[in-house]
Amino acid sequence: MATLPASLKQIALFLERLPGIGEKTANRLAMYLLRMPEVELQAFGEAVRELKKRTKLCKQCLNLTEDELCSICMDNRKDISTITVVETVLDLLSFETGNIYNGLYHVLHGKIDPLNSVGPDEIYINHLLTRVKGLTSSLKEIILATNPDMEGEATAMYIKKQLERLKEEDGGLKFKITRLAYGLPMGANLEYADYGTLGKAIEGRRDY
Amino acid sequence: MATLPASLKQIALFLERLPGIGEKTANRLAMYLLRMPEVELQAFGEAVRELKKRTKLCKQCLNLTEDELCSICMDNRKDISTITVVETVLDLLSFETGNIYNGLYHVLHGKIDPLNSVGPDEIYINHLLTRVKGLTSSLKEIILATNPDMEGEATAMYIKKQLERLKEEDGGLKFKITRLAYGLPMGANLEYADYGTLGKAIEGRRDY
Repeated sequence: MATLPASLKQIALFLERLPGIGEKTANRLAMYLLRMPEVELQAFGEAVRELKKRTKLCKQCLNLTEDELCSICMDNRKDISTITVVETVLDLLSFETGNIYNGLYHVLHGKIDPLNSVGPDEIYINHLLTRVKGLTSSLKEIILATNPDMEGEATAMYIKKQLERLKEEDGGLKFKITRLAYGLPMGANLEYADYGTLGKAIEGRRDY
Repeated sequence: MATLPASLKQIALFLERLPGIGEKTANRLAMYLLRMPEVELQAFGEAVRELKKRTKLCKQCLNLTEDELCSICMDNRKDISTITVVETVLDLLSFETGNIYNGLYHVLHGKIDPLNSVGPDEIYINHLLTRVKGLTSSLKEIILATNPDMEGEATAMYIKKQLERLKEEDGGLKFKITRLAYGLPMGANLEYADYGTLGKAIEGRRDY
């Protein structure tokens, strides 16, 4: 069986390892790359090689950055009295892209997931606790924005307990701990909503 | 609005230009790359940069190769009496992967598509004619395997006319010209088949 030439196959095999890309798609993408301008391939190849060297975690919130602090932590228009705790940088980007939140973040880079051997010490929870300890009256609220699935819930619950312990130890800390609202997504159809979501929508109903 | 750091964003923007990859997927892939081992990123980046330099077209069949002739043309177990004409290298790979054909190929690298200003001279039809002229009694069959869509049909039709003209000019050329069969795909359900396919299945029915 003949295949692509080695150099193209190497690229296809690499692309195939990325999430959501199968063999056929990988081959198609590799062929597409072959038709791109040489100068762009050079730039992309270089960027991939430099990626790990240039990118690091923000010292404060663990967002990705090329400097000591990320663009959000350095932005003095941000409301520093609120910290939203998210699982991944992509979750942070969702909030930022939507332009619906103006506070700071803390990226956990994972969630507590015992089935995959990820405990509280494997993600950046201690870093959050240390960060919060250093803030006294300036911090007013921590929003737990982990995903509404089993592991995300467990992670939120664990962090909540740790934060409450911190508040007990230090009377100076007076922040609220909140969790994202559950309910029907906008534009949803009641007929097709799952029972878990409907239950949460009833449970969290509001005066109107 | 905060975004990914520049080096990561550069990679995401590049990936976003590939077919079938949107902004969210591009970001997710870029993040995934960041977690891959450094040595693999180095190898991939290098491969991308070298891609165009190393890859060229086979002198005989225009398949992709790193040498003068591709692995198929150099394989002396292949049946050199048959040439299958395909639009793209990926089509060729489908035949090869399926292990259903043992002859040679000719890759057109496109199809006649007047709406996109692709005429017969923009794809490798003349190259095919020159190749065929050089073969006398050795060539027994040319299978036209362009896609069964409007442009593919027009391309097959055009090539057929050119090949017949060639046979008229040179009595030594005695190859058959065939076209892939049309009909119901294996595992299909009659209920969901389109009328075009059903019509072809009736038209091409066989004794049983």
